Amino acid sequence: MEHTEKLLLELFLIFGGAKLLAEIFERLRQPVVVGEILAGVLLGPSVLGLIRPNEVLGGLAEIGVIFLLFTVGLETRPRDILQVGWTATLVATLGVVVPFVLGYFYMKAAGHGLMDSVFLAAAMVATSVGITARVLQDAGALATAAARVILAAAVLDDILGMIVLAIVTSLSEGRVHYLQLAIVAAEAIGFSLLMIFFGSRVVSRLHPTVAKLSTRNSAFVLSVLLCLGLSLASVYVGMAAIIGAFLAGLALAEQSEKWHLKDNVHPIYQFLGPFFFVLLGAQVSLRSFGERGLPWMLGIVCMLAVASKLVGCGLGSLSLGLKDALRVGIGMVPRGEVGLIIAAVGLSLHAISDRAYTVVLLMSMFTTLFAPPVLRLLLPAARQPLAPQGPEA
Amino acid sequence: MEHTEKLLLELFLIFGGAKLLAEIFERLRQPVVVGEILAGVLLGPSVLGLIRPNEVLGGLAEIGVIFLLFTVGLETRPRDILQVGWTATLVATLGVVVPFVLGYFYMKAAGHGLMDSVFLAAAMVATSVGITARVLQDAGALATAAARVILAAAVLDDILGMIVLAIVTSLSEGRVHYLQLAIVAAEAIGFSLLMIFFGSRVVSRLHPTVAKLSTRNSAFVLSVLLCLGLSLASVYVGMAAIIGAFLAGLALAEQSEKWHLKDNVHPIYQFLGPFFFVLLGAQVSLRSFGERGLPWMLGIVCMLAVASKLVGCGLGSLSLGLKDALRVGIGMVPRGEVGLIIAAVGLSLHAISDRAYTVVLLMSMFTTLFAPPVLRLLLPAARQPLAPQGPEA
Repeated sequence: MEHTEKLLLELFLIFGGAKLLAEIFERLRQPVVVGEILAGVLLGPSVLGLIRPNEVLGGLAEIGVIFLLFTVGLETRPRDILQVGWTATLVATLGVVVPFVLGYFYMKAAGHGLMDSVFLAAAMVATSVGITARVLQDAGALATAAARVILAAAVLDDILGMIVLAIVTSLSEGRVHYLQLAIVAAEAIGFSLLMIFFGSRVVSRLHPTVAKLSTRNSAFVLSVLLCLGLSLASVYVGMAAIIGAFLAGLALAEQSEKWHLKDNVHPIYQFLGPFFFVLLGAQVSLRSFGERGLPWMLGIVCMLAVASKLVGCGLGSLSLGLKDALRVGIGMVPRGEVGLIIAAVGLSLHAISDRAYTVVLLMSMFTTLFAPPVLRLLLPAARQPLAPQGPEA
Repeated sequence: MEHTEKLLLELFLIFGGAKLLAEIFERLRQPVVVGEILAGVLLGPSVLGLIRPNEVLGGLAEIGVIFLLFTVGLETRPRDILQVGWTATLVATLGVVVPFVLGYFYMKAAGHGLMDSVFLAAAMVATSVGITARVLQDAGALATAAARVILAAAVLDDILGMIVLAIVTSLSEGRVHYLQLAIVAAEAIGFSLLMIFFGSRVVSRLHPTVAKLSTRNSAFVLSVLLCLGLSLASVYVGMAAIIGAFLAGLALAEQSEKWHLKDNVHPIYQFLGPFFFVLLGAQVSLRSFGERGLPWMLGIVCMLAVASKLVGCGLGSLSLGLKDALRVGIGMVPRGEVGLIIAAVGLSLHAISDRAYTVVLLMSMFTTLFAPPVLRLLLPAARQPLAPQGPEA
């Protein structure tokens, strides 16, 4: 019973806290997602100490962000992604190269060791697409050119990020296995392309089967299974689970209306999504700010983190015009939990110092909180929200 | 990453397995819920060993059954419960007294010790309403008189079960605190009555507030918060969380249509519900069947478990006519996880033997699997399913 009590209290505080701060941020015309993250900072160990990330909450958070990217995928069609393919490739590539190079040379110039420099540079690379996807969805802007480039680039960014992490990890262990790396990269790229090109066609052939099933709401059930299955497959080929969820949404996008998918998937996301953002906030360690000597290094790394994506991804998408290029650049800024994962790998391999780890952690948080309000300013005034108040009965 | 991979694999297997067996059972015209439990038996440690109950899955299961009772509450109005108040009181009381007395005297007659007898008798008492609620919902029979009596009786049964467990636990520790017990019982009864009488009125006054909120889908958000809050309050006053979820649904039932609650809550339940039933199945230990000397005792206890509820609850509801009395009697038979909890308490207090524990565990499982098909036979032919294929856009 104590067990149940603890879980229910956490659920109530997290869901309630997220929605309370979201309501306040909505009224202040600030990005709702920042409100949810701040709810986590307040509830977490740094301030009130009411919640502490644990396995169960972590699980809910993971499922929450998977359903977020699934709903985003459902609102995007494969051809939307293919149309911006080359631009997105340029955005993702420059968005990986520029931050890595800038991060590495700054660290070396400041007198840090090789591994510290390499890991910090690697942690500057990967964009956490969850934050941006949420801002775009909240603003009803998923159908814009900039949003499509960001989403397409995020898939590639995840693959490139994985390759960078693999190289950096091998370096710290002494040897890089290029062939193995090439195979892993080919698998990930092959999987993504297969899903984008053929996923939708396979799904459209499922329609007669779905109609024949006795299970109620069978289209929704099959879609959730596809989402979970592709998320898992995505992890198997070395990518993030959310990329698989996005690809599943993409494959189902054309059936979405006929199968009532949005009406069914949205409530699940609305319930579980806040757990992801609140837990992200609960991981912020305000105590780290107190460490001596950090401010300078932290300030420069944060500035580089923003500037390098803005320049790299902005240049990559200049063909869309300056305004959209700015949107893409800012949209790719948040490092979210991905930077943390890379820094944690570095720490576990004893490849980086505690100080570099703290800097990466704070840089991740800074970019996560910085990008949403700026992106929101750059987006056209919110249209009709895409999330319905509830379907008309 | 391994962490995510394990979670996703478990989610895929549990959700996929549950829905596959559910589809098969639906085609065989058997209760779908039994299919989901069997999926758990197959996937669990006894057979394939593919999933093993853990904290994260346990959390999902708890949330799943909470949303099940929440949806059931949403389909029931407070006056439906009040109208059958006296019948339900009789059903719950006799449904606790008869099983306890029969269980206790059988055990004493068979030569078992006092504590073994008392704990086994206590474990025969509490009905697990989740199973029956699910069968009734699947059959579209929640609006029948028998269903209303069962649901109302389940609230009281939970309170009586708590009192029995408290007395039995105190006995094993040597002393019963009657005053403390009376306070706890009064709290639980007061809480339930307050919610049934005034919950709906309070909620109906919230309508203007809900309309003023900037949060999207604010009625749904507030409803989920109410569900979590009342589940928590319910645990605080010593009752099961699902009773609070049911009372929350009850309080919201009259706004359900206006606020589009069913359309929003149902998908969450459809996603998380299977985790509850599959995990129930995964806890079945087929190895226990092999123990010597069990068959006789087990056979008699199972028979008594069915007969005592059938007679006690049937007699209590005889005023509804024989057919409905049978439905109520069978509907109250499943002991589900509640019997397990009581037996586990006994085991942790060293008050009962391993053998008595195993018998309770298997009796719980037997009643859980026995009741659904019988209840389904007793129900009128399924009407229009209450779960929509998806709202019309």
